[in-house]
Amino acid sequence: MVESTTKRQLVIIGGAEDKENDSQILREFVRRAGGTKANIVIMTAATELPREVGENYIRVFERLGAENVRIIDTETREDATSSTALEAIQKATGVFFTGGDQARITSILKDTEIDTAIHKRFSEGIVVAGTSAGAAVMPDKMIVEGDSQTNPRIEVVEMGPGLGFLPGVVIDQHFSQRGRLGRLISALLQEPAVLGFGIDENTAMVVTDNQIEVIGEGVVTIVDESEATYNNLGEILKDEPLAIFGSKLHILPNGYKFDLKTRQPILNNGTVPDGSVAVGSTNT
Amino acid sequence: MVESTTKRQLVIIGGAEDKENDSQILREFVRRAGGTKANIVIMTAATELPREVGENYIRVFERLGAENVRIIDTETREDATSSTALEAIQKATGVFFTGGDQARITSILKDTEIDTAIHKRFSEGIVVAGTSAGAAVMPDKMIVEGDSQTNPRIEVVEMGPGLGFLPGVVIDQHFSQRGRLGRLISALLQEPAVLGFGIDENTAMVVTDNQIEVIGEGVVTIVDESEATYNNLGEILKDEPLAIFGSKLHILPNGYKFDLKTRQPILNNGTVPDGSVAVGSTNT
Repeated sequence: MVESTTKRQLVIIGGAEDKENDSQILREFVRRAGGTKANIVIMTAATELPREVGENYIRVFERLGAENVRIIDTETREDATSSTALEAIQKATGVFFTGGDQARITSILKDTEIDTAIHKRFSEGIVVAGTSAGAAVMPDKMIVEGDSQTNPRIEVVEMGPGLGFLPGVVIDQHFSQRGRLGRLISALLQEPAVLGFGIDENTAMVVTDNQIEVIGEGVVTIVDESEATYNNLGEILKDEPLAIFGSKLHILPNGYKFDLKTRQPILNNGTVPDGSVAVGSTNT
Repeated sequence: MVESTTKRQLVIIGGAEDKENDSQILREFVRRAGGTKANIVIMTAATELPREVGENYIRVFERLGAENVRIIDTETREDATSSTALEAIQKATGVFFTGGDQARITSILKDTEIDTAIHKRFSEGIVVAGTSAGAAVMPDKMIVEGDSQTNPRIEVVEMGPGLGFLPGVVIDQHFSQRGRLGRLISALLQEPAVLGFGIDENTAMVVTDNQIEVIGEGVVTIVDESEATYNNLGEILKDEPLAIFGSKLHILPNGYKFDLKTRQPILNNGTVPDGSVAVGSTNT
């Protein structure tokens, strides 16, 4: 097993990341993929416009100096066994899943040779990234689709298998921009998982082993259900609102970190605050 | 002082409450105002369409059997000293603030004789209700206006004085429907207050002294900052995202209660759950 000594690396992006200006998030992905020596594979399975979407990313990654960038477009499960595609994955130092429809990614790729090959490279330490639909597929169970701007109800989300790069959590994207707290909590209670991550647009959570660092313009909203004292999931029908008592809520902007094992948020100077703060004491 | 023995009663509605069918929320207001013997004053200060909005409520309250329903329309602060208006308030058993623009309510009514008269009746135990803008004015500091579907930043909300029927908290409305978590947290950190209530449409929090009961179709989302261990309010500029560690989050549908003093959510059977629940253990 390589996993125990090799770090896992993920860049999970809430969609609509900057591609024209500083491109902080894509820059971090390219850096982790090896910088100018990066060998990047862009997976366009999610989109019905693979050429357009893929070439847009080629432009950015080449602008940032990646040496080798190619698209693997898979429209069928047969495409996902192509030997050229498999060779490309075997040489890749970074794999990037574009946006589109997350159900396309899993229906085309899940449990194919390409899926296995990417997981093997991931376990060997290469960085795997995804934006929007490409972020949704990261957990073992993903939000296939769901309603925005709603209170939590069972019917709000449809869950399905994800690609499993970050198992045991729930991830949602375009989070603040689409008002998805209700959807995230609906997914979290049904999963069942204790940690839900809502990632804003042009914002990413960068995972290095068990540590998450937030980068980008917005925030990552974390709902930690591990100390919740009550929910009514077992008592309600699917169109009735969910109740939950005592979830924890953390809001983390650029530079803040979170430990997946201890479930502690960490200050941007690397320390964990140890007490209560006087709320709003410094500014009105 | 009457306050110590008389219960305070508020019905704070997240907007868009049902007026055609069962009208659960308006029904509860009329019941608390004395039922068929209710003497209800509708305050239309928030709206520029006082007749239209007011007559809509007259129809509902009369359909539910309230004996005496009248509109007090105040377009200027002079209107708010009218002796007929003051007499109506003195006889009222329920006062209802309509929706519209909350800044109109406070600029026209705040600290006028009518404001004082309503507070006096409120302290004597009559029920005061408000929907949408009429809900926003309930705290001592209110959200005057703000952005929806955004992460929390200082610039997201403008705060101003409210009418102060429920001091020390922050209230937002149309909560899930407009994706207002970011706005609620922005207001809560700047207030400064420790409890923020996000009320959904066709949903109300009914306050009886220090106990809140949720009624209606959606949920009340409660953010309790009292045990938060960190926020960055003192360190950031107004367009930078707010951070917060360790807020508590409760989601309460119809029938669930919340104690404003202990800040504990209460089950719909009246008990406080005493331990951790196995998350999602009953349903997948």
